[in-house]
Parts: sequence; C-alpha cells; structure tokens
Amino acid sequence: MKRIIFALTQILIVIAARVDAQTAPIFVKGELSATNNHTGKIWLNELSMPDSTFNYSVAQAVYDKSAKLDWHIHPAGQILMVTEGEGYYQEKGQPAKVIHKGDVVKCPPGVAHWHGSTPGSTFTYVAVTPAQKGKTIWLQRVTDDEYKNAKNK
Amino acid sequence: MKRIIFALTQILIVIAARVDAQTAPIFVKGELSATNNHTGKIWLNELSMPDSTFNYSVAQAVYDKSAKLDWHIHPAGQILMVTEGEGYYQEKGQPAKVIHKGDVVKCPPGVAHWHGSTPGSTFTYVAVTPAQKGKTIWLQRVTDDEYKNAKNK
Repeated sequence: MKRIIFALTQILIVIAARVDAQTAPIFVKGELSATNNHTGKIWLNELSMPDSTFNYSVAQAVYDKSAKLDWHIHPAGQILMVTEGEGYYQEKGQPAKVIHKGDVVKCPPGVAHWHGSTPGSTFTYVAVTPAQKGKTIWLQRVTDDEYKNAKNK
Repeated sequence: MKRIIFALTQILIVIAARVDAQTAPIFVKGELSATNNHTGKIWLNELSMPDSTFNYSVAQAVYDKSAKLDWHIHPAGQILMVTEGEGYYQEKGQPAKVIHKGDVVKCPPGVAHWHGSTPGSTFTYVAVTPAQKGKTIWLQRVTDDEYKNAKNK
C-alpha cells in the first residue's frame, strides 16, 4: 500500500513539473492597461513596435474575465491569434462570435468592432497590427445590452 | 490508507484534465513539410497568407528534435515568436544563440541565417513575414559542424 502511495506521489511530482514547464504563459503578462478605452482589467505586452523594417506592431493582450475593449477601428486592419481562453468578437451590424484558443480572426480595415473575454474565462491573444495607416480609432463603450447579447449567442 | 490513495488518484485526474486543457497546442500542427530546405521533420500551419490587406504571412512551424532549416534569407525580414521548446538561431558570422518559449527574434532583411530545434527539445514558433520584397531565398544546408558548434554554446 505504501508503495502505491509513493508511486502516485512520484507521478504527481513529475506531472506538476511538466505542468509548470508547459502551462507557463508564452509571454509575460506585461503592463496593466491604464487607458480609458476598455472596461475590466487588460494587460498589454508590446512584443514588437513598428519601425522602418517591420511596419506592424505585435502585441499580446491578456483579459481578465468580463473585460472588453470599447468599439474601435483599425485603419489598416488587425490579425488576432487567440492563444488562451475564450472571448467575443463582434463587428458593427453583425452578431457577436465566440472565439477560442487557436482561432485566427482578421479584423478588416475601417470596420468598427470590439472584442473581450467571456464572463467565465480569461482571454489572451497576440495581435499583429499594420501601422501604415495610423493608430486605432476609439469609439463608444460596449453597452451592457451588447455584452449580454454576445453572451446569449 | 485507501482514502489517501483515493484522494491522490482524484488529484491526478483533476490535474490531467487541466493539463489536457492548458497544454493543448495553440494551433494544430499543420502539414509535414515535404520541401528540400530543411533536415528533420518540420510541420507548417499557414495561419494567414499575405493578401492586399495584410501584406505579411503568419505561420506556425513545429520542429521535431534536431530539425533545422537550411541557411536562408528573408528579403524583408521576419519576426519569430517562440511559443514552445528550445532552439537555435544563428546569423552568418555570428555565434548561434539558444532561444526559448517566450523569446521574440527579429531576423533582419537580407541577412543569411538558420534556425532549428536543439537535440533534446521540440521547438515551435509563430513567424510573421513581410511579403512585399518577395519570397525566402534558400541557401546551403547547415553543416554538422555548424550544428555541433551551436550545441556547444
């Protein structure tokens, strides 16, 4: 019996070490955003800033549960790669979509949209954002009704 | 005693479920590469092809242990985001560097370089590659000596 406990404990230790190694976030969480264009906590890690060689930014965003950006427009679009959790993505005039780890979402240039985490999950993505047409244009807050409608999808 | 075994087993099951959920690869492995510009197995998943809106490709590459691309040049450079494992990155005339999950590497335009996994680890990255200056230029194989030298760093 003691041998079984010993063996199970050893297995637990090995698994715990593997979990530590493999489930560590890919990139550090970065800075807690202090901007007024979202509700809820969002952490940003700028992985690569646009420059004369790479005319796009690469950034990781980590959302606390129920956090969401305001409606906004990317003048040159944006590609989102969801790396963890579950969130919503909605373009103006379209129903919200639930998106998950492994999804790749293309936000078209000039289209008003928002994204956020679901109430039950954190949400992380890496965004590649072309910089040649200028910065993100921030619009109105996502209303409680809009967020509720997303939840009901 | 039986209770302890029961409890340990329950803990194992819960941990295993969490491991499954969290360590699942972010993106599917994709296609095993059949090109003649690498040694060892490499899987490619094209997450986004260049088009008139997004003038860069986004692709995941998964390397088996000891797999490596040949020396090559990106005419407009490339940004690598290491998402798993450990690999080598070497630019012509420079010593190889060991790179890990969480590292972001910028390959400058026009610079001959290679990357590959270490002998003891698989290696995965997501690469963002500007397309405006044409395709990758493939050069010679990485020699056994070059790979050995990387290992000795």
